[in-house]
Amino acid sequence: MALFSSLTPVFIAILCIVIVAVLKGFKKKSKKPKAQTTSTSESRPWVDEDLQDNTELNLEEEDNDDWAHREVDVPQIPFSPPQLSEGEMLRRSQQFFELLNKRRSVRFISPKPVPREVIDNVIRTAGTSPSGAHTEPWSYVVVADPDMKHKIREIIEEEEEINYRQRMGEKWVNDLKRLRTNWVKEYLDTAPYLILIFKQVYGKLSDGKKKTHYYNEISVSISCGILLAALQNVGLVTVTTTPLNCGPQLRVLLHRPANEKLLLLLPVGYPSEDATVPDLNRKKLEDIMVFV
Amino acid sequence: MALFSSLTPVFIAILCIVIVAVLKGFKKKSKKPKAQTTSTSESRPWVDEDLQDNTELNLEEEDNDDWAHREVDVPQIPFSPPQLSEGEMLRRSQQFFELLNKRRSVRFISPKPVPREVIDNVIRTAGTSPSGAHTEPWSYVVVADPDMKHKIREIIEEEEEINYRQRMGEKWVNDLKRLRTNWVKEYLDTAPYLILIFKQVYGKLSDGKKKTHYYNEISVSISCGILLAALQNVGLVTVTTTPLNCGPQLRVLLHRPANEKLLLLLPVGYPSEDATVPDLNRKKLEDIMVFV
Repeated sequence: MALFSSLTPVFIAILCIVIVAVLKGFKKKSKKPKAQTTSTSESRPWVDEDLQDNTELNLEEEDNDDWAHREVDVPQIPFSPPQLSEGEMLRRSQQFFELLNKRRSVRFISPKPVPREVIDNVIRTAGTSPSGAHTEPWSYVVVADPDMKHKIREIIEEEEEINYRQRMGEKWVNDLKRLRTNWVKEYLDTAPYLILIFKQVYGKLSDGKKKTHYYNEISVSISCGILLAALQNVGLVTVTTTPLNCGPQLRVLLHRPANEKLLLLLPVGYPSEDATVPDLNRKKLEDIMVFV
Repeated sequence: MALFSSLTPVFIAILCIVIVAVLKGFKKKSKKPKAQTTSTSESRPWVDEDLQDNTELNLEEEDNDDWAHREVDVPQIPFSPPQLSEGEMLRRSQQFFELLNKRRSVRFISPKPVPREVIDNVIRTAGTSPSGAHTEPWSYVVVADPDMKHKIREIIEEEEEINYRQRMGEKWVNDLKRLRTNWVKEYLDTAPYLILIFKQVYGKLSDGKKKTHYYNEISVSISCGILLAALQNVGLVTVTTTPLNCGPQLRVLLHRPANEKLLLLLPVGYPSEDATVPDLNRKKLEDIMVFV
């Protein structure tokens, strides 16, 4: 009995240690996982931390009465566009394929000016993309100012060199070596326009509350696909890039709000006279399509 | 002293408990986080678990000498497509915008047959999309068989009803109520084609080793944007859907391999005669574009 009573403070102390350790374990579980370490063998160093969708964190702040403000039924209107004949559909589908099949990613862009109105139309076209619950969660930042382009280039090349030398696995560097890319991005200065595509991970309602942007990354990527088709349609070239780890710096440089994250950067212009592309082939239809 | 020696087995037992609790804490941290709970206030129930990119897990198995097999320099070839005049560019950009601006997501699809070759061309066009390191990580499963379509419908409607009733937050259900959608998806039976877009989270090299598919979700989404432009170009309609939680069942039903995950499902055909769309507006150019 005496033994037991003298042990009690000891047991209490140990019980506290157990509780703290278990709580620490739970805290680590619920904390948002950071995927970037210097180890390249088991991380995905090419995936920008900044690209991770933090919509979940934002949701915790939402008021349960939020939806009440917006429960307005949107009227349905008839939709019956003119139909094409089957022959016309076949011809158009063939032509559109041939047009898009000529598209390549081009890293050598001429400084020759491109009419502004063409870029406006191309961005308008990207804006016709579908999006989760029609949230249209995109910002297209088009940079033509030479000083700003140069600042963007400096930021990106600095980060890219670190990426190439340190963060990326040998695999990524060598996979890209096949395509002859490295951290020097001359097109960031020479291209007449840089299109930086930001995804809005959440929006704002008129009363100031947060608006959920469902599937914002997929929506903005789909929008980018339409943008690429629009660029190809007018004979402009680009390369679809994902500047690793530059997102926050570029967001600050371009005064973008906190709800925006950089997703893609597209330098746009005419191909330079000596432009080359890697001699790659595309998969055949039977390798990408299964018919049931 | 006697006290201490009799306490030792007790302390050892408690120490074991502490160690186990701490280890459990670490295990929970490194385990892939499951985002789905029945609580809707702080989870993102509309995000399919299945969409999470597991490329990281696959990487751990790769051999360090993998790259050696594929270090073949791809030759560069000249790229100089014919250039259009500025007037032509302006005209084409305007026309393409007007074409794509007519595109709407349509949930009422006619059973009228669509020529197979048109669908082939539309898929070929989607396959011209850029992709991370040219991995082309997409599978387009086109379903025309009525029994298969019906099985797909049953799977999706069953899951969607659970989603609507249980998993989704009030917000999502009400946000979609504005657009008058629910879990009944008649178009899954009536549309002549269902296009199920799978992303390949990793590939296979000729020696059987795993091939990394960088940015596979973004790549496949971009490809989908090009697909949507191709469909609009021939006068076909669709709605871009993300069938929550059906991925694994649909993958098994369609005999897709383990490296594929369902990303999107697009029912394709002509609009039905009584088709309607919500009377929504798109943002203006100045609301989506910033010019620097």
